[in-house]
Amino acid sequence: MTHSPDYRPTAAGVALAARKVAEILPRTPLLPLEVEGRTIWCKAESLQPVGAFKIRGAWHRLTALRETERARGVVGVSSGNHAQGVAWAARRLGIAAAIVMPIDAPAVKLDNTRALGAEVILYDRPGGEDRDAVAGRICAARGATLVHAFGDPWVIEGQGSTGTEIAAQMAELGLEAPDQVVAPCGGGGLTAGLALALPDARIVPVEPEGWDDVCRSLAAGEIQRVAADAPPTACDALQTPATWPVNFEIMKARCPFGLVATPAEIRAAQRLAFAKLRLVIEPGGAAALAAVLAGKVDLTDRTAVILSGGNTDAEAFARVLREDT
Amino acid sequence: MTHSPDYRPTAAGVALAARKVAEILPRTPLLPLEVEGRTIWCKAESLQPVGAFKIRGAWHRLTALRETERARGVVGVSSGNHAQGVAWAARRLGIAAAIVMPIDAPAVKLDNTRALGAEVILYDRPGGEDRDAVAGRICAARGATLVHAFGDPWVIEGQGSTGTEIAAQMAELGLEAPDQVVAPCGGGGLTAGLALALPDARIVPVEPEGWDDVCRSLAAGEIQRVAADAPPTACDALQTPATWPVNFEIMKARCPFGLVATPAEIRAAQRLAFAKLRLVIEPGGAAALAAVLAGKVDLTDRTAVILSGGNTDAEAFARVLREDT
Repeated sequence: MTHSPDYRPTAAGVALAARKVAEILPRTPLLPLEVEGRTIWCKAESLQPVGAFKIRGAWHRLTALRETERARGVVGVSSGNHAQGVAWAARRLGIAAAIVMPIDAPAVKLDNTRALGAEVILYDRPGGEDRDAVAGRICAARGATLVHAFGDPWVIEGQGSTGTEIAAQMAELGLEAPDQVVAPCGGGGLTAGLALALPDARIVPVEPEGWDDVCRSLAAGEIQRVAADAPPTACDALQTPATWPVNFEIMKARCPFGLVATPAEIRAAQRLAFAKLRLVIEPGGAAALAAVLAGKVDLTDRTAVILSGGNTDAEAFARVLREDT
Repeated sequence: MTHSPDYRPTAAGVALAARKVAEILPRTPLLPLEVEGRTIWCKAESLQPVGAFKIRGAWHRLTALRETERARGVVGVSSGNHAQGVAWAARRLGIAAAIVMPIDAPAVKLDNTRALGAEVILYDRPGGEDRDAVAGRICAARGATLVHAFGDPWVIEGQGSTGTEIAAQMAELGLEAPDQVVAPCGGGGLTAGLALALPDARIVPVEPEGWDDVCRSLAAGEIQRVAADAPPTACDALQTPATWPVNFEIMKARCPFGLVATPAEIRAAQRLAFAKLRLVIEPGGAAALAAVLAGKVDLTDRTAVILSGGNTDAEAFARVLREDT
């Protein structure tokens, strides 16, 4: 199935993505966690085959390509999780994939992307090189299709299938669909997708301190950029300079506000997920849980929290674990 | 439902346990892992609410108690995982639980058992105190029912439900039931249960070096004990001095042999589970995967591996992660 260039993501597209994803990926568990005497529902997307929800959007996008597009390959831009998602889907479909990745991406993400058979092209993120420009040049030279990490209607729909699954899993437990979903937010692909999937829920995006462009954009009513001197962050997966209009249109209509998690709050959430859920969660993947544990979220009876990824280097994770020992 | 004292565990009992468990516990995921070009299926029992499969046997046992037995409470003996399983089931059923635990159990296991509302009674494992004698005294004084960690027919049946679930999950993937299951082995509750659940599969128990009493018992054809000077092991969950006849009868008939994993092999398996599956697995829980990764298991096309638990202290896990960095 293909769409016109001005295609906008829809709830029907999310439903289609959820069916496509269910054919190929086992459902990730929805784990209960007691917080302040309430049960919240943690969606462990870190247990996807590539360790993050990004596999959903990549699969929905690549399966929507025409035969002629497939033959010319795809190009992804990513710090690592979208990279692995695109590489995984491309290998499965026999499509050539090149991924533009920052030279300071976690080694585990670079290694895993290469292990999935993708060509990795490094760019100088710390030096300020524009990744989209790098990707654009490669696409132009090869006639390849750009698979954007978040500003793409199919990618948004694919990520939204996470919400569809949560609602189905809660129904099996005899519960109504979540009335609130707290999600880590980089460019807003997951946040926008969840908003389409769950029209009656409040969707709360959570960003790392200093990378709160979506928070400020929601407050301002128009897209704001991360400051040029934004601080370093362990949340490589959420380091996006600004959201895109296709994401922001949806978020503006559906997200009253965004929240910010500090580095210490994020590390505390990683340690809690280790001890209580026995999950390895990367810093960016723990941002939403961090906001919940820090008391920044008004908990409801049916709050779901996305644990979006688990790709972190052993040394970095050991440092996080040791902080309180 | 109750049984006579000479009740022996059966495949029908496992099927009943699987139905009872399915009513109360979400299924743990069965995660594919590529090893030497083959896919093995990893059953993540570390994701159970108490972080280990032990919750299955405890639930099946406690729900089989008569009302008069429930009123007098239960006593468990455990380094921590069975403790948490019994405490969880007892709280859920409103039964008083006392757990006899070694003073050198991981702090996380002691804390979690108390947090589940159980009374923890410590015994001096390093000093050689006999835990069964301690438990026996408490049972006699209170009229409480002993819930043994492995030498109990209901516990064996409950643990076997792990195998029932694996077969169902593989069927949903269009695969036949596993023809081989590799499982960490302490006293043999899980191993015997898997044998009952999967009558056509080879069941391979894996023990830590120096604690290989089941290996030697299978070779000798009769129950052997761990040596009095057995080395220290990080696998606290597998530190049992000897299996019991109710377990050994089944294992002798169904397990051609057992395997041993070294401490280094176990740490390597914990690191691989961290990096490739994003799971926190405790040393004892990684023993079966360790044997597979060390090339000690003849892999088949349908080999399942049990990752039996994930309760490990942050400091201990950080040390394991740092070993290769």
